[in-house]
Amino acid sequence: MTTNRQVLIASLPSGRLQPSDYELHTADVPALEDGQVRCRTIALTIGAGQRAGLQGSASYAGAPVTGVVMNGTGLATVEESRSNRFAPGDLVVGPTGWQEYSVHEPAALRRVDPPADPALHLGLLGTNGLTAYFGLLEVGKPKAGETVVVSAAAGSVGHMVGQIAKVQDCRVVGVAGSDAKCNLLVDEFGFDAAINYKDPDFRSAFKAATPDRIDVYFDNTGGEVLGSALFRMNTHGRIVCCGVVSQYDTANPEPGPRGVPGLLVNNRVRMEGFLVFDFEDRYDEARRQLTDWANSGAVRPRVTEFNGLESAPEAFVALLSGQTVGTTIVRL
Amino acid sequence: MTTNRQVLIASLPSGRLQPSDYELHTADVPALEDGQVRCRTIALTIGAGQRAGLQGSASYAGAPVTGVVMNGTGLATVEESRSNRFAPGDLVVGPTGWQEYSVHEPAALRRVDPPADPALHLGLLGTNGLTAYFGLLEVGKPKAGETVVVSAAAGSVGHMVGQIAKVQDCRVVGVAGSDAKCNLLVDEFGFDAAINYKDPDFRSAFKAATPDRIDVYFDNTGGEVLGSALFRMNTHGRIVCCGVVSQYDTANPEPGPRGVPGLLVNNRVRMEGFLVFDFEDRYDEARRQLTDWANSGAVRPRVTEFNGLESAPEAFVALLSGQTVGTTIVRL
Repeated sequence: MTTNRQVLIASLPSGRLQPSDYELHTADVPALEDGQVRCRTIALTIGAGQRAGLQGSASYAGAPVTGVVMNGTGLATVEESRSNRFAPGDLVVGPTGWQEYSVHEPAALRRVDPPADPALHLGLLGTNGLTAYFGLLEVGKPKAGETVVVSAAAGSVGHMVGQIAKVQDCRVVGVAGSDAKCNLLVDEFGFDAAINYKDPDFRSAFKAATPDRIDVYFDNTGGEVLGSALFRMNTHGRIVCCGVVSQYDTANPEPGPRGVPGLLVNNRVRMEGFLVFDFEDRYDEARRQLTDWANSGAVRPRVTEFNGLESAPEAFVALLSGQTVGTTIVRL
Repeated sequence: MTTNRQVLIASLPSGRLQPSDYELHTADVPALEDGQVRCRTIALTIGAGQRAGLQGSASYAGAPVTGVVMNGTGLATVEESRSNRFAPGDLVVGPTGWQEYSVHEPAALRRVDPPADPALHLGLLGTNGLTAYFGLLEVGKPKAGETVVVSAAAGSVGHMVGQIAKVQDCRVVGVAGSDAKCNLLVDEFGFDAAINYKDPDFRSAFKAATPDRIDVYFDNTGGEVLGSALFRMNTHGRIVCCGVVSQYDTANPEPGPRGVPGLLVNNRVRMEGFLVFDFEDRYDEARRQLTDWANSGAVRPRVTEFNGLESAPEAFVALLSGQTVGTTIVRL
């Protein structure tokens, strides 16, 4: 029996997440039961939202526990199958968790076409790309010529949101946490402007970058950037609430933004939370469109890769501290 | 020339509004120019939102100044007209301000049919009734069987929202500031339940009154009630942001609710501000429907009346401190 290297949640973070909140563990690969499929993980994707899952009841995913394999989505190959729906060698995406081998009911897996490219299946066509697509187009509903602002703009969802907004002929402004990221947003991803929220002059720079105010604010962060955006919204503006990364890596989330609800009333602003899973019946349509845009060069997905299962905790910490760009991927 | 008694803004309130923030003044009635109409005020309506207008740039109405007639909507009769659109004796609603006589361009006035009933023209068919109608039906979009919660439920907008929600076959829960108001909501206006937010057990009572959670929360208050409602929203719930009365009568508004934006994401909640003026092209439709409901007894509008122009400041203070029920009206 092959052994299965895993990364377990060792402790629930009381402040900022540390690599030491995880531990490497070796277990047996579980036996297959009738109807099940065993997968070998090729690569994992890590998203900031997973940090919320370690905050207890704050997340939609339920309360976290220790001593279990860290959850996560992976690209994998089917090694052995006792289901007629999958055969050895099939390429799949599923909830592999942070481990080398995992066993699944077929319904948990989605077959994908070769090549076995994590950037494609976990980035562009994965949850990140779909989240950007549906959040921007279906919740934000941008119109040509409008100003779209996105926070955590160099992140997995943010860099896609900005590029999709450019396809819609919007003016696109990104907010990110370093000058290097801001340069990347403008030079590589075609944003019209990008602002570093750590800049002491952030508020005036933000104002200068949004001379026609904001029609759609795609919020990945909450916190101060949301607070600033609320004061720049146009009448009938839309705020897409996608994530709250500014409040994940802490035990003491801040109070909400001062402009809620007063500024929502004055400017008739719609602020709407969404989860991509609600659009599941339209994933195929979105994947076709994202593929077309990527093939034409209109959208250029980016990944930051880490190597080896044991690098997953450090990859997660790097992501949360803003050290990564695009989709964060751990290759096994 | 007749004299014109007026109530002027004497000082901008630094904390809670006081009657002494206003002063009585006597001026000449302004001369009529060609095309203008002079009105004599029959009654004024006062709304909590007018307090926001005294808070400086926080309001959509612009920055306030002192030494001017307090703004406000009134029911009036046309005394003299140099416009062919109005004749002496016509009954109108318009921005009379807190004064006996006012001069207007015809476009500022709306002709209404007799009787000269302030409750009808300033309450049911006035901004309050229209705000309840469009806010609930067009922004909240309640479905039969859903739970609708409204704050400031005994107020001018709130008591109409609850009754209109009952017409939609919803379960209706009101939040108000006294046991007497709560009893009125259930006994007179047909709410299914009502809770006093000043009750020390408010949160548990709120939970008990919303066993199926909340589908539509019509928010007139912001503050603590909004904060509590955010934690009780159903998936895909809607929060109608209509007013922020908890934050008007102060110089130090609180920070926003802690559940924004995190809970909006987790529960896919839409939070949307609106102003009734955006629905102006549908006022006639709404007035016909509100009239039908009132005639059938399905909706019973309520007013609290004060007598004499000089009582307007005290009426406003009473409104802000929760001493009034329904639409607050000052008869001249």
